[in-house]
Amino acid sequence: MTMENPEKISIFLSGWLWLKALPLKGLAKIGEIARQTKKIADDDPRRLIHSLKVGLALTLVSLFYYFQPLYNSFGVSAMWAVITVVVIFEFSVGATLGKGLNRGFATLAAGALGLGAHSLASATGKSSEPIIIGLFVFIQAVASTFIRFFPGVKARYDYGLLIFNLTFCVISISGLRTDEILELAQKRLLTVLIGASTCVIVSIFVYPVWAGEDLHKLVAKNIEKLGDFLEGFADECFRTSEDEKTCLVGLSSVLDSKSNVETLANFARWEPGHGQFMYRHPWNQYLRIANLTRQGACRVEALHCYLNSVTQAPQEIQAMISRTSSEAGKALKELARALETMTRPSCPNPDISNLKNASRNLNSLLKSDFWQEHTSLLQVLPVATVASLLNDTVISVEKIADAIEELSSLANFKGKENNGVEENKNNVSHVSIVIDGGQSSAQAD
Amino acid sequence: MTMENPEKISIFLSGWLWLKALPLKGLAKIGEIARQTKKIADDDPRRLIHSLKVGLALTLVSLFYYFQPLYNSFGVSAMWAVITVVVIFEFSVGATLGKGLNRGFATLAAGALGLGAHSLASATGKSSEPIIIGLFVFIQAVASTFIRFFPGVKARYDYGLLIFNLTFCVISISGLRTDEILELAQKRLLTVLIGASTCVIVSIFVYPVWAGEDLHKLVAKNIEKLGDFLEGFADECFRTSEDEKTCLVGLSSVLDSKSNVETLANFARWEPGHGQFMYRHPWNQYLRIANLTRQGACRVEALHCYLNSVTQAPQEIQAMISRTSSEAGKALKELARALETMTRPSCPNPDISNLKNASRNLNSLLKSDFWQEHTSLLQVLPVATVASLLNDTVISVEKIADAIEELSSLANFKGKENNGVEENKNNVSHVSIVIDGGQSSAQAD
Repeated sequence: MTMENPEKISIFLSGWLWLKALPLKGLAKIGEIARQTKKIADDDPRRLIHSLKVGLALTLVSLFYYFQPLYNSFGVSAMWAVITVVVIFEFSVGATLGKGLNRGFATLAAGALGLGAHSLASATGKSSEPIIIGLFVFIQAVASTFIRFFPGVKARYDYGLLIFNLTFCVISISGLRTDEILELAQKRLLTVLIGASTCVIVSIFVYPVWAGEDLHKLVAKNIEKLGDFLEGFADECFRTSEDEKTCLVGLSSVLDSKSNVETLANFARWEPGHGQFMYRHPWNQYLRIANLTRQGACRVEALHCYLNSVTQAPQEIQAMISRTSSEAGKALKELARALETMTRPSCPNPDISNLKNASRNLNSLLKSDFWQEHTSLLQVLPVATVASLLNDTVISVEKIADAIEELSSLANFKGKENNGVEENKNNVSHVSIVIDGGQSSAQAD
Repeated sequence: MTMENPEKISIFLSGWLWLKALPLKGLAKIGEIARQTKKIADDDPRRLIHSLKVGLALTLVSLFYYFQPLYNSFGVSAMWAVITVVVIFEFSVGATLGKGLNRGFATLAAGALGLGAHSLASATGKSSEPIIIGLFVFIQAVASTFIRFFPGVKARYDYGLLIFNLTFCVISISGLRTDEILELAQKRLLTVLIGASTCVIVSIFVYPVWAGEDLHKLVAKNIEKLGDFLEGFADECFRTSEDEKTCLVGLSSVLDSKSNVETLANFARWEPGHGQFMYRHPWNQYLRIANLTRQGACRVEALHCYLNSVTQAPQEIQAMISRTSSEAGKALKELARALETMTRPSCPNPDISNLKNASRNLNSLLKSDFWQEHTSLLQVLPVATVASLLNDTVISVEKIADAIEELSSLANFKGKENNGVEENKNNVSHVSIVIDGGQSSAQAD
């Protein structure tokens, strides 16, 4: 027994220390959560606004339940308006509108069909009614679940089919127990419409978040990130490792943006015209540009592996590689700016001409017998690879430029007449002569 | 008037032709839909089975509404069970379980909190009750909407927070109009549990679709596709353009698989042990392997641009490039097979040794003065780039092999003792001597 005492004491002590540390741990945890909350709100303040908007819409709709005359006409069904607000209110206008329209039309169609099924089943007699209804429910559930697998349906009407299935079941099954099924269907439709329109109105008129605008900015931002990376590559192959890290994170976010871009484009298609975007803005072209940007990013990532080897290359080659990469970066950033501000890029684009020049010079240097002094190919190899990959990148940049040019004519971007002068002023530092609109483009200094 | 007659006739005629063509167009449309339906069912027959399962679960649950005793105890609330089935039943067991658990626990927690809010509000008096309830609803809605933006919460508990918000509103707002709120909360919880457990039971016991198994197969399949592409690259640089197209489609599906893989991993974490997968199978390691595979695919895509240039290279180099590429493909396909069958890859891996050998030979050929005969670097450039990118690909393959090795020890893959003989037989055609488990690995022929 005496042997156990010290053990007991130590267990007791460690337990006591754990208990004592508990409030501290709790405080640390709370501090951590507070930090994370602040970060999420700081990253995108619209998140906080969205949360307040949901609270507002819900409070508005719950008034239906509170005010006597409204409650008298809807009764318990008024709860469907509250439920509709909770499940429909999404971050962007497009997502909310898409869900709202899906829910509204699906409720209408399924309600009508459910009523039809009920009257068909009740016409066959009281005893066979549940069997017929069961059969209808089964067939309808199988069909609407299967249709959700169609790719075109899945992208836009997935939620509608879910609600169709739900409403059909609710209406037709209710018919087994109540005779007020028509009233039920009407109430359900009306309350869903009230909830959905509250959401849509709050979503559009209180600090709206447009998916189309987000898509527009995201695609421009991705091009800019790619440009930053290429400029950074040129810039003495990244001054600090901190810079490099930021650029690499940017690059991988471009590579991983596919699903994000596609979701935003899906939502954007639901949105009415707003700001500079008309209804039926060519969102598909944004998808094309985003695809080309990701292809470019894939090449640039391969380029990045040869970062260190460039520093061992002869000075002349280094300068040429740096020049091409920097011109590519500059051209991309200019394209991103044109896209972001929705101005038509000048045609022919002076940045692209500069880039083509730089790439041509690099190629002719590689063609020259400058290389004969180097005995082993392994010395030359990494630099040659960088040059090749850089050529591919230049092709990617040109493709992106073409796609943006196409978008600018599809979406009627405004011309550059008014800010052409300013444009030339910006370019004057690195291009000696640019005859705007002409074919000739001078060598950069 | 006589001038207009021919016009009228032509309008009439074209209208008549359009009307006549309508049934034909309708038939063509129906044929098209039928074809698409067949394709979707053929691509994955589990989709049809899933639809039938949803129909079964819904019909089962609607019995609650039909049978008198059950209806007596639940009343109209029984409809919640039907609704739960419609919104919870997902394609895979993991997704269904995740949604079911989220809905169950959220309903429990929000129901309790809603009751608390109701009793707090009603204690303050009849006139202030709606204001207090409104305040609670607003604060709760803002908080639970905001919490959904936390990345960790979004991945796993997004649906739970939605249902928490919904149930809290339903219970606390109902309190304004009815005194049977405790009964309402109980009924809601019970019917949700009935619906959710029906879904989970049907989902697990009738032709289950395991997200974990799908993830496992997808990751292995992606490695195999990459291997196919590299073997095709070696194989006389693709015999037909048809083959090339198939391989390219495969490659881009690997590049775009990120969100799919992540969704499946999220679902897989909810699943209990099944078949060869235990509960808490190392799903994160699958994510790592998938990432490495995508990185490899990105390099191979860059490689693909130089496909045609290889045919202009000297015979000796062509053979070497083809050899390395084919060894890389072979190694990847062997790794995919090991992963798929959950067998521990032999260590050291003879395929990886072969691959390293091939890559070493290619490098020493490039180091030799074999190249001096070529005067211009532009001739050498594409081939040199291919060699460089191929080296990167080899590094990628080694990383994938390491990651699979790690997975095999984390998940206790079975050893190769029993099928070692068969293994050697397969390798005998291209490896002269392989001493299993030993360090020595012979040169391939």
